[in-house]
Amino acid sequence: MHLTKTLPFDKKKIDEIIKIHPTPFHVYDEKGIRDNAKRLTEAFSWAPGFREYFAVKANPNPYIVKVMREEGFGADCSSLPELMLAEKAGIKGEMIMLTSNDTPVSEFEYAKKLGAILNLDDITHIDFVDSNIGLPEVISFRYNPGPLKGGNAIIGVPEEAKYGLTRDQLFDAYKIVKQRGVKRFGLHTMIASNELNADYFVDTAEILFDLVCDLSKTIGIDFEFVNLGGGFGIPYRPGDKPLDLEYISDRIRGAYVEKIEARGLKPLRICMESGRLMTGPYGFLVTTAIHKKEIYKDYIGVDACMADLMRPALYGAYHHITVLGKENENQIKRYDVTGSLCENNDKFAIDRMLPVIERGDILVMHDTGAHGYAMGFNYNGKLRSAEFLLKEDGSVQKIRRAETVDDYFATLDFSGM
Amino acid sequence: MHLTKTLPFDKKKIDEIIKIHPTPFHVYDEKGIRDNAKRLTEAFSWAPGFREYFAVKANPNPYIVKVMREEGFGADCSSLPELMLAEKAGIKGEMIMLTSNDTPVSEFEYAKKLGAILNLDDITHIDFVDSNIGLPEVISFRYNPGPLKGGNAIIGVPEEAKYGLTRDQLFDAYKIVKQRGVKRFGLHTMIASNELNADYFVDTAEILFDLVCDLSKTIGIDFEFVNLGGGFGIPYRPGDKPLDLEYISDRIRGAYVEKIEARGLKPLRICMESGRLMTGPYGFLVTTAIHKKEIYKDYIGVDACMADLMRPALYGAYHHITVLGKENENQIKRYDVTGSLCENNDKFAIDRMLPVIERGDILVMHDTGAHGYAMGFNYNGKLRSAEFLLKEDGSVQKIRRAETVDDYFATLDFSGM
Repeated sequence: MHLTKTLPFDKKKIDEIIKIHPTPFHVYDEKGIRDNAKRLTEAFSWAPGFREYFAVKANPNPYIVKVMREEGFGADCSSLPELMLAEKAGIKGEMIMLTSNDTPVSEFEYAKKLGAILNLDDITHIDFVDSNIGLPEVISFRYNPGPLKGGNAIIGVPEEAKYGLTRDQLFDAYKIVKQRGVKRFGLHTMIASNELNADYFVDTAEILFDLVCDLSKTIGIDFEFVNLGGGFGIPYRPGDKPLDLEYISDRIRGAYVEKIEARGLKPLRICMESGRLMTGPYGFLVTTAIHKKEIYKDYIGVDACMADLMRPALYGAYHHITVLGKENENQIKRYDVTGSLCENNDKFAIDRMLPVIERGDILVMHDTGAHGYAMGFNYNGKLRSAEFLLKEDGSVQKIRRAETVDDYFATLDFSGM
Repeated sequence: MHLTKTLPFDKKKIDEIIKIHPTPFHVYDEKGIRDNAKRLTEAFSWAPGFREYFAVKANPNPYIVKVMREEGFGADCSSLPELMLAEKAGIKGEMIMLTSNDTPVSEFEYAKKLGAILNLDDITHIDFVDSNIGLPEVISFRYNPGPLKGGNAIIGVPEEAKYGLTRDQLFDAYKIVKQRGVKRFGLHTMIASNELNADYFVDTAEILFDLVCDLSKTIGIDFEFVNLGGGFGIPYRPGDKPLDLEYISDRIRGAYVEKIEARGLKPLRICMESGRLMTGPYGFLVTTAIHKKEIYKDYIGVDACMADLMRPALYGAYHHITVLGKENENQIKRYDVTGSLCENNDKFAIDRMLPVIERGDILVMHDTGAHGYAMGFNYNGKLRSAEFLLKEDGSVQKIRRAETVDDYFATLDFSGM
């Protein structure tokens, strides 16, 4: 079987970049990102005030976050630097949500200053926020259903997860913040990661809708939004089927009508905080084969490494590889495609059937637009790569320079040597 | 059972640092490092010209590398930045060994310029080095025994490992470089990682001694050194027994007498490239409990995270935790000790019995002196911590500043926002 995935660019376009910048580098496809964003917005156009908060952690590049802003999305942030990044990308006020855990005061403080929505991870954070910076007008809590709901393979079972409040705690939490003058309320959960089963997200919505109903009645508050979290998977393998967003939306709409509208609850904004779904498929790691090795197996060594993409080493994750200019050649050769770290798990592919590769060939790793650059480390003194945006008009913009040795040494003072 | 590990400092010393620098930070114990280094040197004092090349990747701080230099050790480097770091730490010429794989020309070039020893990972690297920069006077090759020798749990089976040359290739390789005028020869292997079975290292030495003998006779060359690699484990858990270096040395000496001296081979320098063994037990991650949480489990949230220490998340590795000032209290409470990443595996300990912990308590994670700071990433916008050296005279020196948001943004140009 000849497995392929299409690319939004051809070899000529990449050669154009290589003329001005050596491999490895990441390329993001602006058109792909925008088309997908519009599709999500369209799918949920029935939902009053639907809002996607892009999970900045997936791709913390301000030019990418700016594209999200232009598509009407907000930013889901999990740290002070991410809040600052969202701010720099022009995202304002309640279009920013802080969803963090084990949170220091400084983060809550900065988020409040920005007018961001605080999504509290723990009941003790009520007092923590109140005593340190005062409670804001709007508060959301993160729900951890524990044994009431199974998790998926990647995120594990909810009762082992460090996140969120129990159901009982939620009832206490909203009561307390209501008494302390909080006026507007949201509810959040996040139970899956990289999930391709559409019904999972429908279940999550139903759980939150029911919970909103119970909480509203018991405590006597109205909810302004629910945040279904992220966790939407993408088709990494050529055979994988992408999530049917329209199906998910239709089913969630049915639940909304039944559980919110029919019960006479006020209109409820549906929010999401997807990262992978928004950028994952639209990023590509471009790298050159610099080494061919034949020992007990056949290896292709490339000039990218775990510093650029850690998912294969970390999770054994599959990332499709296209050899540029050899898209139509037979995949007759079995290779391990390796990076240069002194870690044997620095392999982008193991036993992968590919066309015969020569030194100098350009390899493109697919679906690196989320958790690619973002997770890179400097282990072994490896430097992180540049990022380019392939714009809708076909031009290419450098949106991050490559790290240099000076960056690597930036926190050191050699004067005592 | 009350499990303890001793610390080379008390709470007063840490409070002293905290007065000038907030947690989290790493502290390295210079005396511990030097005493251990001297023990290794002493154990192998019988071996002609014994040399440890400290694996810079384990702790790429120039002040640590300088301590190694002062103890008579060299540097094992795996990348251009690591070569530069060794150079800045004052390590010169053949006291540097470049052991890398999938190596770009720039690295070979810089190493040759420094007069470092090139340890080639592949037979094709002979032509690669020769045609690009010319072969140096001394060459070493890395041996991958493949199915001839089982690996250990961490490094996996050698025939699945991307490293080194096969036995047959070694015979060809030395023949070729001899013909091309290389005058001095070394042989390297590295089959284990974090191994606590002493006999493993004796086996490795025996394999290399036999191979040196076979290669010498067949090709008509003398070997100047063998490099046994690293892989020496350390006792992470309180019950673990440290490797008996004197036993290993004695057994290797026996093999040396039998396989090198008795066969009339020339004196052979024994080299090692340990990282973990040299610094692992002498590093400590100091962090503050900033959050207590009780849901389905009890959690202590600290101000350190995977950015400071990734081994527990990556390998499920055990790192002992001491609660400063509560060393003698009963370990009556079961906690997950978590960092703040939006990754549920950002847990330093799971179901760990500890004394009752309050917010503000200082926790010390043990054995973080190798692969601790070195493996940190910036995922979730998390910043890497400062490093301090606790000197032999009891004073404390800051040897790396903490990362700032400006560092995190260094590769970005916001002018297009």
